[in-house]
Amino acid sequence: MNTLFDLVATSMPDIQSSLDARGIPIQRAGVRGIRYPLRLLVSATVSQQVVAHWEMTVALPAEDKGTHMSRFIEVLEAWRETPMSPDGFCRMARAICDRLDAKICDVAARFPYFLEKAAPVSGLRSLMDYQVSWVAHASQGAPTRFSQQVQVPVTSLCPCSKAISEYGAHNQRSHVHVSLDYETPMAADLDVLIRGVEAQASSQLWGLLKREDEKFVTEQAYENPKFVEDLVRDVAVLLRRLPGVASYQVEAENFESIHNHSAYAMVNNRNER
Amino acid sequence: MNTLFDLVATSMPDIQSSLDARGIPIQRAGVRGIRYPLRLLVSATVSQQVVAHWEMTVALPAEDKGTHMSRFIEVLEAWRETPMSPDGFCRMARAICDRLDAKICDVAARFPYFLEKAAPVSGLRSLMDYQVSWVAHASQGAPTRFSQQVQVPVTSLCPCSKAISEYGAHNQRSHVHVSLDYETPMAADLDVLIRGVEAQASSQLWGLLKREDEKFVTEQAYENPKFVEDLVRDVAVLLRRLPGVASYQVEAENFESIHNHSAYAMVNNRNER
Amino acid sequence: MNTLFDLVATSMPDIQSSLDARGIPIQRAGVRGIRYPLRLLVSATVSQQVVAHWEMTVALPAEDKGTHMSRFIEVLEAWRETPMSPDGFCRMARAICDRLDAKICDVAARFPYFLEKAAPVSGLRSLMDYQVSWVAHASQGAPTRFSQQVQVPVTSLCPCSKAISEYGAHNQRSHVHVSLDYETPMAADLDVLIRGVEAQASSQLWGLLKREDEKFVTEQAYENPKFVEDLVRDVAVLLRRLPGVASYQVEAENFESIHNHSAYAMVNNRNER
Amino acid sequence: MNTLFDLVATSMPDIQSSLDARGIPIQRAGVRGIRYPLRLLVSATVSQQVVAHWEMTVALPAEDKGTHMSRFIEVLEAWRETPMSPDGFCRMARAICDRLDAKICDVAARFPYFLEKAAPVSGLRSLMDYQVSWVAHASQGAPTRFSQQVQVPVTSLCPCSKAISEYGAHNQRSHVHVSLDYETPMAADLDVLIRGVEAQASSQLWGLLKREDEKFVTEQAYENPKFVEDLVRDVAVLLRRLPGVASYQVEAENFESIHNHSAYAMVNNRNER
Repeated sequence: MNTLFDLVATSMPDIQSSLDARGIPIQRAGVRGIRYPLRLLVSATVSQQVVAHWEMTVALPAEDKGTHMSRFIEVLEAWRETPMSPDGFCRMARAICDRLDAKICDVAARFPYFLEKAAPVSGLRSLMDYQVSWVAHASQGAPTRFSQQVQVPVTSLCPCSKAISEYGAHNQRSHVHVSLDYETPMAADLDVLIRGVEAQASSQLWGLLKREDEKFVTEQAYENPKFVEDLVRDVAVLLRRLPGVASYQVEAENFESIHNHSAYAMVNNRNER
Repeated sequence: MNTLFDLVATSMPDIQSSLDARGIPIQRAGVRGIRYPLRLLVSATVSQQVVAHWEMTVALPAEDKGTHMSRFIEVLEAWRETPMSPDGFCRMARAICDRLDAKICDVAARFPYFLEKAAPVSGLRSLMDYQVSWVAHASQGAPTRFSQQVQVPVTSLCPCSKAISEYGAHNQRSHVHVSLDYETPMAADLDVLIRGVEAQASSQLWGLLKREDEKFVTEQAYENPKFVEDLVRDVAVLLRRLPGVASYQVEAENFESIHNHSAYAMVNNRNER
Repeated sequence: MNTLFDLVATSMPDIQSSLDARGIPIQRAGVRGIRYPLRLLVSATVSQQVVAHWEMTVALPAEDKGTHMSRFIEVLEAWRETPMSPDGFCRMARAICDRLDAKICDVAARFPYFLEKAAPVSGLRSLMDYQVSWVAHASQGAPTRFSQQVQVPVTSLCPCSKAISEYGAHNQRSHVHVSLDYETPMAADLDVLIRGVEAQASSQLWGLLKREDEKFVTEQAYENPKFVEDLVRDVAVLLRRLPGVASYQVEAENFESIHNHSAYAMVNNRNER
Repeated sequence: MNTLFDLVATSMPDIQSSLDARGIPIQRAGVRGIRYPLRLLVSATVSQQVVAHWEMTVALPAEDKGTHMSRFIEVLEAWRETPMSPDGFCRMARAICDRLDAKICDVAARFPYFLEKAAPVSGLRSLMDYQVSWVAHASQGAPTRFSQQVQVPVTSLCPCSKAISEYGAHNQRSHVHVSLDYETPMAADLDVLIRGVEAQASSQLWGLLKREDEKFVTEQAYENPKFVEDLVRDVAVLLRRLPGVASYQVEAENFESIHNHSAYAMVNNRNER
């Protein structure tokens, strides 16, 4: 598309293409902090239009001085109308390898995602928002790896507070943050993942709750107390059973209503700390 | 729509509707920190789908104990598919007055907004993102007031650095933040406003620049040095000429490339500090 | 102190001092986003060392092209070892007027502040942190005005949830944000303000709570339910009684444990929205 | 110290100490988001008082239901007056292992750090602030590992822009983020690290610059253009030569003055992406 301009530009010095003598390969060189639209392909027929924050990098061999930063934006622009599934997202990472003549490319997009939920008693419908990240790692001669991360806000109610108190129990909003590496991008099912995580909490959240719903979630949380440690363990049990998951990590952070700090726990099967 | 549930719920105590004896009216009571989709009506035929952060409040008379928070979400849900111009946004604020039986309602939505721009030499097209806020203030028996705020990122190049140095001049990204109260919501033209602000900077920004474009913007900025004080004054001159503007404020913040802090200036015609 | 350098520098063009023809006075021109140490004079003998974010500006007449940004940092550097009370903070604002030859100067510093608190049953001591801002407005020929803002994190427990549920009640962390304009800086007493605000919540927070403390705060919150509207009204009642307060604003934001958004309320006696 | 209260509390159920049947060990359980003072031992005789954000966790065996969150705060409180070197920080991590009867403990503290710098020509002194993190990993039967991270803000000037333009060159603030694992905590020298990183940039930053200094840094940056890729490579060359460094990672992010996004590069010798 912009070959003409690439030709015109050849009369200018192309410093990025010159040789480098320090002998240091660069694992990642590219752009970050870009806001650009993303059309999510939620299912075969449904798409959701969001705005994503992007980071796009390539590996740079020791002898190359620099990469061509503008080409990342060209690819983003070229793909912006394409409804994007996890598999399409991986194809875009490979398109960057081609466009930048790179052996390895990493692409990450972070975006809000919405599910329409029905309140538990009234059945009234509203949207709940989740923070999602997709990450693709394309490497020549190997299958492209796909990871998905989602932050699911839930209610946690403290078992200790319930057990020792005459009445009431402190509870609070918590964030469950799940990060999954998939065997193939086709294995990623965001809605199933979110619904599964929500089911492990003291209670899930809704945008819109009428009084009869509020009674329901208050009592459900009280009947279902969980430590932050319980939460990550119960989510880990779920993730182990999800098909196509190569590795997982789950973190939970309770924004304690009785402290000005959080309780936190993390489990993974990657042997990382 | 949810009258049935309101009826069902009447058997539960409605504490929010009870009387309050402290004698203190509340200027704002409502919800904030909500993420919900917003379909912008950019022109008569074009819409742009974004995700907004919402704050929605009503005034509460001294004798009312509380407002009904869930009704704000009901209105948001009811309006979510409606393409929204500034005028429609004001209508939604009045709809909240009706739904919550309130005399005054304030609605604010903050969202990213995109313009498609052509690079100055190559003509290559890409998107630039801006942070925009809409604010509507509906008051019974008075016209609804509409304000628009936009943060326009630009380049600033320091006149002092240029004048005293043998070569070069420090330059940096700057944020110009404009806040306008309009005589009517119909007067708000976001694209004209952004293009006007960009024209006052040492240079405007683009998402995608090829080498010939980079040469152009580098030289243009060098030919066009501006202090942060120049920037707010030049934008103020522009804003004074915009039709339908009841009052304005302009701030500029230069993320100084030679310091770890910003240079800042502000002008308004509201007599505020 | 740096007169020598000012002299040396006179051979260089001083563009900031040249005349401006646009006829637009600037309400604020200066620096922001500066991190610098601040030694708080908590009482006559006790000081607390913190790190503050600073914003410092002066008013610029229509005929002056620019201010001298480096002089703000000179003043900051000159005052950095001085233990600073609200009154000293106002003197520093006047020192900026002198150093920059300005009629009006605004200085704001935002910093964390700590109180040592004893847990309610065990008596164990730990620190609680609060976000505080000081703002001084110095104007030639008028007394310097001083404002103080503090964000106090507390627990709120929902009266509606308690009333309609068989057991339990949703509760969460809340931020109460108070902003006070004082008749004189001497009237500002931060500790009294924080303790007073905490006493209005369903429960206050502590850094360190043992089991017997957790039982206490859980039950106390349950016995003391408050809507976000109750919270701002009860704090307003307190603020009205504080001596030396010229005007006040109080906001409360409940990070609802059953939603992914906040409930919010605001009261002031400034007639602002 | 609080043995008495632990004794008193034994009449209450201690749910955290009960057995767990899910068979899932937890790599990290503890507290995060805590603000607490930290007294840095900068050298043998000099200390610097800052406020840190803390995260403190222990590993939890599969059979333990929960950890005792309050004990982390007890340790923090007990150590708060102790001037803290990297070695002392590691001792604190081991003290947490003891207090919580844990085999593994991770402690991280993030805080602002100040260096007093003299402007390059005028010699005027002011403070520059850096964001620093310390991380200790204590494991029974193994030496405690210590890592240090620092974000150094600098100026970068674009070699391509300089080469292709008649005059000027775009430049901007950049963040160099270095993360080092040390062979022993005694090897960590923060001041040497910061000074070394600053020397690799197009120019370093200062809080206070007079006109003659501004001329110097403008010209120095112009004479010393660097791509983001150059910056990480030059810092990597430096880090390789630092004694006692077990592994390193360096990232640089240029907040491009001609775009609304960043250029980014990363190098490490950990074989991570």
